[in-house]
Amino acid sequence: MKQKRIMVIVPITEQSAQAFIPGFEQEIAPVLSADFSVEYVALEAGTTPFIQTRTAELWNSQQILLKAVQAEKAGYDGIFVNCFGEPAVESLKESVSIPVVGGFAPAVMNAMMVAHRFSIITVVESVVPMLGDLARQLDVANHVASIRHANLPVNQLHDTEKLKQSLLEQSSIAIEQQGAQAIILGCTGMLEVHDYLSHALSSKYQRYIPVVGPVGSAIGVLQNLINNQLKPSRLAYGEPTEVMPLYL
Amino acid sequence: MKQKRIMVIVPITEQSAQAFIPGFEQEIAPVLSADFSVEYVALEAGTTPFIQTRTAELWNSQQILLKAVQAEKAGYDGIFVNCFGEPAVESLKESVSIPVVGGFAPAVMNAMMVAHRFSIITVVESVVPMLGDLARQLDVANHVASIRHANLPVNQLHDTEKLKQSLLEQSSIAIEQQGAQAIILGCTGMLEVHDYLSHALSSKYQRYIPVVGPVGSAIGVLQNLINNQLKPSRLAYGEPTEVMPLYL
Amino acid sequence: MKQKRIMVIVPITEQSAQAFIPGFEQEIAPVLSADFSVEYVALEAGTTPFIQTRTAELWNSQQILLKAVQAEKAGYDGIFVNCFGEPAVESLKESVSIPVVGGFAPAVMNAMMVAHRFSIITVVESVVPMLGDLARQLDVANHVASIRHANLPVNQLHDTEKLKQSLLEQSSIAIEQQGAQAIILGCTGMLEVHDYLSHALSSKYQRYIPVVGPVGSAIGVLQNLINNQLKPSRLAYGEPTEVMPLYL
Amino acid sequence: MKQKRIMVIVPITEQSAQAFIPGFEQEIAPVLSADFSVEYVALEAGTTPFIQTRTAELWNSQQILLKAVQAEKAGYDGIFVNCFGEPAVESLKESVSIPVVGGFAPAVMNAMMVAHRFSIITVVESVVPMLGDLARQLDVANHVASIRHANLPVNQLHDTEKLKQSLLEQSSIAIEQQGAQAIILGCTGMLEVHDYLSHALSSKYQRYIPVVGPVGSAIGVLQNLINNQLKPSRLAYGEPTEVMPLYL
Amino acid sequence: MKQKRIMVIVPITEQSAQAFIPGFEQEIAPVLSADFSVEYVALEAGTTPFIQTRTAELWNSQQILLKAVQAEKAGYDGIFVNCFGEPAVESLKESVSIPVVGGFAPAVMNAMMVAHRFSIITVVESVVPMLGDLARQLDVANHVASIRHANLPVNQLHDTEKLKQSLLEQSSIAIEQQGAQAIILGCTGMLEVHDYLSHALSSKYQRYIPVVGPVGSAIGVLQNLINNQLKPSRLAYGEPTEVMPLYL
Amino acid sequence: MKQKRIMVIVPITEQSAQAFIPGFEQEIAPVLSADFSVEYVALEAGTTPFIQTRTAELWNSQQILLKAVQAEKAGYDGIFVNCFGEPAVESLKESVSIPVVGGFAPAVMNAMMVAHRFSIITVVESVVPMLGDLARQLDVANHVASIRHANLPVNQLHDTEKLKQSLLEQSSIAIEQQGAQAIILGCTGMLEVHDYLSHALSSKYQRYIPVVGPVGSAIGVLQNLINNQLKPSRLAYGEPTEVMPLYL
Repeated sequence: MKQKRIMVIVPITEQSAQAFIPGFEQEIAPVLSADFSVEYVALEAGTTPFIQTRTAELWNSQQILLKAVQAEKAGYDGIFVNCFGEPAVESLKESVSIPVVGGFAPAVMNAMMVAHRFSIITVVESVVPMLGDLARQLDVANHVASIRHANLPVNQLHDTEKLKQSLLEQSSIAIEQQGAQAIILGCTGMLEVHDYLSHALSSKYQRYIPVVGPVGSAIGVLQNLINNQLKPSRLAYGEPTEVMPLYL
Repeated sequence: MKQKRIMVIVPITEQSAQAFIPGFEQEIAPVLSADFSVEYVALEAGTTPFIQTRTAELWNSQQILLKAVQAEKAGYDGIFVNCFGEPAVESLKESVSIPVVGGFAPAVMNAMMVAHRFSIITVVESVVPMLGDLARQLDVANHVASIRHANLPVNQLHDTEKLKQSLLEQSSIAIEQQGAQAIILGCTGMLEVHDYLSHALSSKYQRYIPVVGPVGSAIGVLQNLINNQLKPSRLAYGEPTEVMPLYL
Repeated sequence: MKQKRIMVIVPITEQSAQAFIPGFEQEIAPVLSADFSVEYVALEAGTTPFIQTRTAELWNSQQILLKAVQAEKAGYDGIFVNCFGEPAVESLKESVSIPVVGGFAPAVMNAMMVAHRFSIITVVESVVPMLGDLARQLDVANHVASIRHANLPVNQLHDTEKLKQSLLEQSSIAIEQQGAQAIILGCTGMLEVHDYLSHALSSKYQRYIPVVGPVGSAIGVLQNLINNQLKPSRLAYGEPTEVMPLYL
Repeated sequence: MKQKRIMVIVPITEQSAQAFIPGFEQEIAPVLSADFSVEYVALEAGTTPFIQTRTAELWNSQQILLKAVQAEKAGYDGIFVNCFGEPAVESLKESVSIPVVGGFAPAVMNAMMVAHRFSIITVVESVVPMLGDLARQLDVANHVASIRHANLPVNQLHDTEKLKQSLLEQSSIAIEQQGAQAIILGCTGMLEVHDYLSHALSSKYQRYIPVVGPVGSAIGVLQNLINNQLKPSRLAYGEPTEVMPLYL
Repeated sequence: MKQKRIMVIVPITEQSAQAFIPGFEQEIAPVLSADFSVEYVALEAGTTPFIQTRTAELWNSQQILLKAVQAEKAGYDGIFVNCFGEPAVESLKESVSIPVVGGFAPAVMNAMMVAHRFSIITVVESVVPMLGDLARQLDVANHVASIRHANLPVNQLHDTEKLKQSLLEQSSIAIEQQGAQAIILGCTGMLEVHDYLSHALSSKYQRYIPVVGPVGSAIGVLQNLINNQLKPSRLAYGEPTEVMPLYL
Repeated sequence: MKQKRIMVIVPITEQSAQAFIPGFEQEIAPVLSADFSVEYVALEAGTTPFIQTRTAELWNSQQILLKAVQAEKAGYDGIFVNCFGEPAVESLKESVSIPVVGGFAPAVMNAMMVAHRFSIITVVESVVPMLGDLARQLDVANHVASIRHANLPVNQLHDTEKLKQSLLEQSSIAIEQQGAQAIILGCTGMLEVHDYLSHALSSKYQRYIPVVGPVGSAIGVLQNLINNQLKPSRLAYGEPTEVMPLYL
């Protein structure tokens, strides 16, 4: 069986990305098929260390695009832009002819398979309306019971205990007051908390409640697209503009 | 790595099912991971040979449910009800605690990853409003450019040439007049036509246009759910009713 | 004037159905026109005593269908499947050529004539997402302020005092916090409580607030369809599958 | 059994109304229950002879309101504003405490019981966007396949042959090209054509296709509301303003 | 540069209107371009002193229409019907061939330019469902986080302190509990409170939150339409009915 | 009266921008108030000469952002990103505290004031799905009858005769077959054609049909926002990320 290769673009500065990669590997391991392998690339100087605004997405988008084009040329079979906000993903679907996923859509797809309405818990308040934009863009807003936040910026996500407590609190509000039937972790940097939250919610409510992790979902969806030979439609995504910016 | 097992319930009479299984295997092979295996089960006497109405779904639903419960008891890790109309799937999500998929939702999920609007080409006219029901039920109606049919009943799908020609005609109308950016094959029995249609459309319109097959999509989505340990939410699907019908 | 006959299918075991029939008669009396009569039929052994899950709907659906086909052959002019969850109703619309109603759609139609947004109070938690499915299916979800439950299973509905108190509590939350302008009783087995709730709400809020009962609404809508000679469209509901299941 | 009385307000000048009343009576007869009676009232000088614009609705609305208030005082049990465009109906729901219906909503309710998508054929082009307004107002726009017109103004509707031919043409386009599963006659003045169109469509397409008449539907819905004791919610419709305009 | 003239129809009795005009002038001054001027006209006897119901809108609509027709004949370039509920505005768009705006749509347009979801705070409870109607009519309901009221009727709006306090309370609930990102003042008679509320909210929440006033928004949108030579489409609004009511 | 200054960012290379500026000035002149002035800035080397893909938007976005930040520092009162696709506009709403508009939303706002449904005619096919994205993002997709294209790339828009002919053809299809009640020019570079198209359509269909130009609409909306002191909500748009990319 031909071995297939996935490029994971971690769309932040390399230094910042390093801290997350062991966690990503842990999330990916149980989902990765034997005939797939994963490699990582981060961005260079001149980009932001983490993304919590549309502006941060904008700053990093050019380099994401370049990394994607390089990955396609190097023969990778698919690309995962490892960020829940999916920076540059729509442009990448124009710019390469291999499947591309971000973190948001795959998590939503998985949540839709196990529940009708779900809530998303993201990192900080400024990301909430950005995810509302994505939900409308993907036309899945009716499935979203609420978008909440853990009040913990990306650069403090390593405080796993604080994150767990906050996720449990916010998920409980979503379930008890807003009709959530499942919870999506709304940042790909929320690592080592999935199992805790899943057990805590199922225990608290005495029944199984799905917790959807975006990294595992993204790898699963990407393998699925690659195996089914599905790529971005050229009726939805035109050919990319030829351009050679001077400053790159 | 633990080997995981998928039960494919072919929700029609056994005799009728047999003719389709070689084709299913062909669709599934490129999608199936090394750590997954697939087995098939069809229904017994007293069910309908194929499904083109809500009533046919109803006739076969009890046996589908029983087969699913047996599969869970036998230790299968996931169930694929191999029919685009997804008979009994919502009930199965109550009745077992392993992932369950039909043909419709996985195909839609895959189509949404590569296009915003897509058309579904099913077998005959009576199925068209049934798929409209599913689209509203899954809250994805805005993504559906149109639901069309090949005017070829399930028991004539073996006439592959006729099917190919009809699919090309109907897809062309969907693309040219109704804004479809991708095509979903709207019956799991449309076998050995996927590659033809994909090449024919890309050649006709001089650009890549995705053709989504429901069988491969379903296996891919199911593997993804199993690997991510995602099962039906008990807030969306209650526990099944205890019942022992006399006639079963 | 030709006398017209309505068949009320009580889609549960006969024993269980008997307890409800006097209450049904009381609900129907003020709505029944002089030129209409009503008869009742329940299901046989092998079906569930009451319906609170999709699986219970599935178990009882075959017998509902057979009773409907028999009713049409016996010359009835219309069929009311007396359950708010409307089990098998969509299949019946294929299988017979007389008007068919369940409990959900007629109550919603009546509520829409007197308010824009309304809440539904059903029996137990597991029914809540099932009614959400129906609301999307009928494409009336925007009219639904909320779906709540009285936390009282069908087999305890005879505790009328407990039911009244719970309905008042749940309706008050719907009105005060969720924008409900009217209340629908979300189970056809909620008998002898309509007048109480109507008076209690109007008295509590010092203004008229409609309470819509599904049984009276269903009979009213069915008479209306029969009188207007309206039957299920054969463009929305195909012809039923010919099938003779062995076990029936 | 107490006899119940319906007031039909024909919201145009009396002279113009007279020509339609025999036709209304024919439509109403098969729907009217033995315990209901119907009376008619038209408007006085100073109003428009027929309604094909929002402005014509506005000119006649004050008199419609006065007739409704008088009808309530005179003890009528319900009011039908006999116009598909439903002039003043929302105001009447504030101003009287008995059920009020126009022509649009009841026809839509009946169509929704027998089909998911339907087209409306009205008189002239200027009415088309007005009915689009009503569809959004009632939040049923997703059910409307299209709104078309017969290109025949109200004051030429007596040319029954021309009307029949135009209705058949427009309905055929709606069915063949726009996904209509049923047809609503979009003017209460389209009299003596319902049976023709119903037979013509069923014959042409070799299957039953519902044709919904607004007058019969309105009487049916109104009887249903009266029998179920359902009136406009005071949470959706406030109390009317006290006012005594000088010129009335 | 040609001077352009706007007619502001204050759609209530003249006596009642006088008290508001100084406040209107204050709202309009900072928005009015040098090449525009504004004049005011109110209604005559026989109309209601203020509008808080659909019925009050209906009573005043004929005179609003007459004033609009007169304004067009007198050469005005645009009309602002100075009421948030937009009485008769849709009819005016048929009846005159110059731009017409009410208070609701312009405020919504401005709010949509600075936020995705916003709440509207109106005067009293009876107006809340009327504004829900307008939101559906304009198809912007998804943008509306909530419609709340200050519990202060129009004839008590001169109690500015009470109004300020109530607006702050209601806005805070909208922002904290209902996801409002901006606030619309839901009555054109809420004068001299805009700056207070804007400062109070920005101070309370330590960030800028837009408060949209309907009078300034309406004048701004109307100037924009006039300058761009945009008038009501004759495909959306037919020609007005010729009518000469006796009592006018 | 304080003079207010608008910065028009032409988000393409300076060389390419120059050809369009005389046309922009012509569009803006009739809309610009006496107390407003307009200045232009284009982008530097390293950006694309015109924008017809998401990738072109991405390439130019960083410079658009920098120009906007400079404009705010230089004391401008508002910013118009002069492109129908609105590149970087959502990021700019985070990054500056003055009003920002692109070309799409203002044109849609103006169209909504004069019609309910409208079509957009853009330059080439690849832009069509990009505008569909914007329509969903702004939640106005129900207002869009269709998005069509003139099959004329931006760098051929100077062929005014060809453009006129194509716009008339595409508008006619939109009006006759797709229910458009108004037409939006879907590229800010469609200059010197507005009056032609407006006259041609009104003449062809013998009634007034609005043609909405994005440049004039944008200036009108921006003046309105500035005059009403409305800026992006900090609950919808967080504060921008501090970043100093090396390569800028």
